[in-house]
Amino acid sequence: MDADAEARRGHDDFLERVAGVLREEGFTGTPAPELPVVSFQHPDKLQAQLRLGLGDAVADEDELLALVREVARASVRTGHRHFYNQLYGGADPFGVAGAWVTEALNTSQYTFEVAPAFTLVEHEVIRHCLAKVGFPNGDGIFTPGGSVANMYGMVAARYKAFPRVKTDGVRALPPLAVFTSDDSHYSVMKGAHWLGLGTSSVVKVATDQHGRMLAGELRDAILAARRDGRQPCMVNATVGTTVLGAVDPLGEVADVCQELGVWMHVDACWGGSLILSARHAPRLAGLARADSVSWNPHKMLGAPLQCSVFLVRQPGLLHRCNAAAAEYLFQQDKFYDVSWDTGDKSVQCGRKVDAFKLWLMWKARGDQGLGALVDNAVACASYFQSRVRDTEGFRLVSEALDCTNVCFWYIPKRLRGQKEDEQWWGQVAAVAPTVKERMALAGTLLVGYCPLPHKGHVNFFRMLTTCHPPPRTEDMDLVIGEVQRLAEL
Amino acid sequence: MDADAEARRGHDDFLERVAGVLREEGFTGTPAPELPVVSFQHPDKLQAQLRLGLGDAVADEDELLALVREVARASVRTGHRHFYNQLYGGADPFGVAGAWVTEALNTSQYTFEVAPAFTLVEHEVIRHCLAKVGFPNGDGIFTPGGSVANMYGMVAARYKAFPRVKTDGVRALPPLAVFTSDDSHYSVMKGAHWLGLGTSSVVKVATDQHGRMLAGELRDAILAARRDGRQPCMVNATVGTTVLGAVDPLGEVADVCQELGVWMHVDACWGGSLILSARHAPRLAGLARADSVSWNPHKMLGAPLQCSVFLVRQPGLLHRCNAAAAEYLFQQDKFYDVSWDTGDKSVQCGRKVDAFKLWLMWKARGDQGLGALVDNAVACASYFQSRVRDTEGFRLVSEALDCTNVCFWYIPKRLRGQKEDEQWWGQVAAVAPTVKERMALAGTLLVGYCPLPHKGHVNFFRMLTTCHPPPRTEDMDLVIGEVQRLAEL
Repeated sequence: MDADAEARRGHDDFLERVAGVLREEGFTGTPAPELPVVSFQHPDKLQAQLRLGLGDAVADEDELLALVREVARASVRTGHRHFYNQLYGGADPFGVAGAWVTEALNTSQYTFEVAPAFTLVEHEVIRHCLAKVGFPNGDGIFTPGGSVANMYGMVAARYKAFPRVKTDGVRALPPLAVFTSDDSHYSVMKGAHWLGLGTSSVVKVATDQHGRMLAGELRDAILAARRDGRQPCMVNATVGTTVLGAVDPLGEVADVCQELGVWMHVDACWGGSLILSARHAPRLAGLARADSVSWNPHKMLGAPLQCSVFLVRQPGLLHRCNAAAAEYLFQQDKFYDVSWDTGDKSVQCGRKVDAFKLWLMWKARGDQGLGALVDNAVACASYFQSRVRDTEGFRLVSEALDCTNVCFWYIPKRLRGQKEDEQWWGQVAAVAPTVKERMALAGTLLVGYCPLPHKGHVNFFRMLTTCHPPPRTEDMDLVIGEVQRLAEL
Repeated sequence: MDADAEARRGHDDFLERVAGVLREEGFTGTPAPELPVVSFQHPDKLQAQLRLGLGDAVADEDELLALVREVARASVRTGHRHFYNQLYGGADPFGVAGAWVTEALNTSQYTFEVAPAFTLVEHEVIRHCLAKVGFPNGDGIFTPGGSVANMYGMVAARYKAFPRVKTDGVRALPPLAVFTSDDSHYSVMKGAHWLGLGTSSVVKVATDQHGRMLAGELRDAILAARRDGRQPCMVNATVGTTVLGAVDPLGEVADVCQELGVWMHVDACWGGSLILSARHAPRLAGLARADSVSWNPHKMLGAPLQCSVFLVRQPGLLHRCNAAAAEYLFQQDKFYDVSWDTGDKSVQCGRKVDAFKLWLMWKARGDQGLGALVDNAVACASYFQSRVRDTEGFRLVSEALDCTNVCFWYIPKRLRGQKEDEQWWGQVAAVAPTVKERMALAGTLLVGYCPLPHKGHVNFFRMLTTCHPPPRTEDMDLVIGEVQRLAEL
């Protein structure tokens, strides 16, 4: 190949042209309500339609732009104001801008040497997060998602209790037990498998009807594990469970952890953003007593995926726990202060720069601006909850509103006023999947659904709001109307 | 807050303005050789200079653009043609375009439901990678970096040998042993800690002078571990060691693994891109006999960070190993074919879309175009090696050239022709850090350095080439000249 020609080519305008396609297709700029959330096609049909194949063929820039347009049109518009399907929604436009910067600057977060400004940015964002959480002397690191952040918590807890685990492994330790609520996220189970504890080491603690961990049950479970010869290693409390959005009683959990000397990790991946709201932060009282916290600004707050932070109260622990001291990367004879090199705190080597987009969002909006976006999301969820409560055919799964999750059944007219026996609930269970299919085919909105078997709940809808695009009460009304319309078709 | 106003605001032009700043500052578009690789400042000074602080203040769009410009100017230009500091370099402009698309579309890779097109794109990219590697019926997943990909390998190997590890943990297994060369990446050690095996479970196998694992030593080590009552769980062979760029003798390693029935994982994070070159792929003969492979297209190939793929020969294993079957996300009563949902193969839950940027690069360049970029990188490395061999004062650390790493000492004039005793080597050891500081302060180039204590090597330079921007022989000449100039200042 002609390296000179390729080097000179530079593809100067291609990025701008791609940006233009994204805007034309409504993925950047002002949200366009007339566009569908999704133009659903089944996998086999979409696979046949998209020109996916890789091989010898070479596409020129015009063809590449056409491919980008095809893929965009076949994608779900997560930035549509009626995308309510996941624990994330639209991206903050300032966050997207920050993400574009880090993609263009393409570096790894591991050393100050190759990421001087980003190292300082990450340091500042973590410092500010630590202040919000209440770990003024703590430490932290950005991680690729909340599941990995929760693994950081489990690894830190284990190392703190048994530093020899690093060299000698789990076989050298007593049997360990990890405690988490039966409404908590599955990452605790996946982490227990990966980290060599095994899923049977996870003790599921009962929750109340709203999904909040029962601290008394937790205490009993810890004592029972001890009696069985198992060493309690970590309690995982949740701020914002995946389905019901429950916030565990952090103060009560902290009391138990303190009394019994167990590491308290808080999975605040979903609900951690409430800390930014002066009005709703009190729901998280007790968070400052935790030993470690996971928080995903890419969820409620709308930082582009991935943006997760792991915070730990004790300074120095993260480095001691994870360091391998590789001499090729973390040379100690460098000419600058190498204590700024963050890479050896991480289980990763190369690490994507995830802090900058959040920093830019924070710069753009300030503490109060971010808090106002959270307030607005909660206010709309509260309004939606009241609509569910007051509208015929709708039934709340829980009266609580800890985060922005509002779970509900829709009872079609044909099922109302009947005896609510097992068969009846079986028919209700079929409503959500059917309506969901109609949602996807209509493209007017997307709302998730699921059952909660351990609570005896058949399929219900999980509505939720996030910060972007900022939801409005009229949007909530539309959801009520569309669920009715699609269910009664 | 006024949700309507914020929603209408849309920040329509901000992204375009940010793209403009990136271009003006030379981070996109044709590389500008007159710009420095870095305008180095020490951490405390840079911290005082950048307006990092987060809090109540709110920046308007003009101020945000000024902040972006400041951060960019304080960053290392990894796309500069004289950035040779890491196992990555500049990003492929088509890759950056793909990354911008996925950032704007902001979704998670876990279900077809929210990532229909990206699910199919990932499927196609993995299919094509599997064909290249020689696992036609295999499976794979994109992971956040090579260290995590290598952990996937260790987890799969362990699960394949002992499925009960998932529930019962490592304590229920015999003591395990993992084998890797003494030149291999530290992620094997970090993985052994995280996964509960402990770093003492890792057996370091000796390498030859070029850094290639000695298969006879591997065989002896496995047999010795068995005699000690340890169960050999995985051999990690390396294609492209971090420092010397060595490729382990994959065929010989495969023979040992086959004979002794041990899982063979190949860490091809750095050197895996050679598979795309018809000329250099034969160096990887034996790769198709592995059980699993990690490959980082974000390294030599220039996909933007992060872009790592884990590939496994056996179909179905990845899902069985990692699935948690969470009913809120992977509902089995969805209206489409849920076998397309990839999320339960992953240890992550939310998962960034990392496949699309590589897909777009592959579409733009085709197999042969990517192969030609690899050929060019290797050819320039070979030319550089010959310049080192033939230039007074330069001395190769290894005569091999398995990847594009060319490691060398520079002996300043004042040290030439002397007795090469311990004291003399001590003076040579100080050359690289000193020159490195001068590089950073001059901003003309960045080349890494490190020692290899287990081989008795004091600090040396690690030069290497990547695909972007495509290196030229004149660039290699400049490196020779600059090292001489800066060392003799």
